[in-house]
Amino acid sequence: MSLLDYFRITKTSSASLAKERLQILVAHERSSRHQPSYLPQLQKELLEVIKKYVNVDQESISFNFEQDETQETLELNIVLPDHPAKNL
Amino acid sequence: MSLLDYFRITKTSSASLAKERLQILVAHERSSRHQPSYLPQLQKELLEVIKKYVNVDQESISFNFEQDETQETLELNIVLPDHPAKNL
Repeated sequence: MSLLDYFRITKTSSASLAKERLQILVAHERSSRHQPSYLPQLQKELLEVIKKYVNVDQESISFNFEQDETQETLELNIVLPDHPAKNL
Repeated sequence: MSLLDYFRITKTSSASLAKERLQILVAHERSSRHQPSYLPQLQKELLEVIKKYVNVDQESISFNFEQDETQETLELNIVLPDHPAKNL
């Protein structure tokens, strides 16, 4: 099962929400747990990129970061405003 | 089930691979299919950010982009080299 399959399965339930949403997930499989994690810093930069494209209210962003010996995952959930697209 | 649960379930099978991997997924639930998609352009910028943190070989990146009436998903899979971390 690929990640895209996951979204196909779960989108039915969330499609009932009127709001547009943007969800970003970063998963890093690590061979060594002794490396420092760069995901928290990466998260800030990813958000800066996203803000170029859509109007994001800081209060509409939720984060989740998990870490164990072999994997780190960073999840960003953003509820977009009613007129999310910027004029590019 | 959250996205993080998905990674918990699937990581056992992929943990047998020696290579480090970075997987990025962007899902955009849209209220209108008439908006132009900004994900292909966003993908380029996300890669530029990631390259600040890890050495990425262009041939080690695979993409998947899917689009339907209500959702777009962009998936990037990157196999990292043996010494992936840059000195920050």
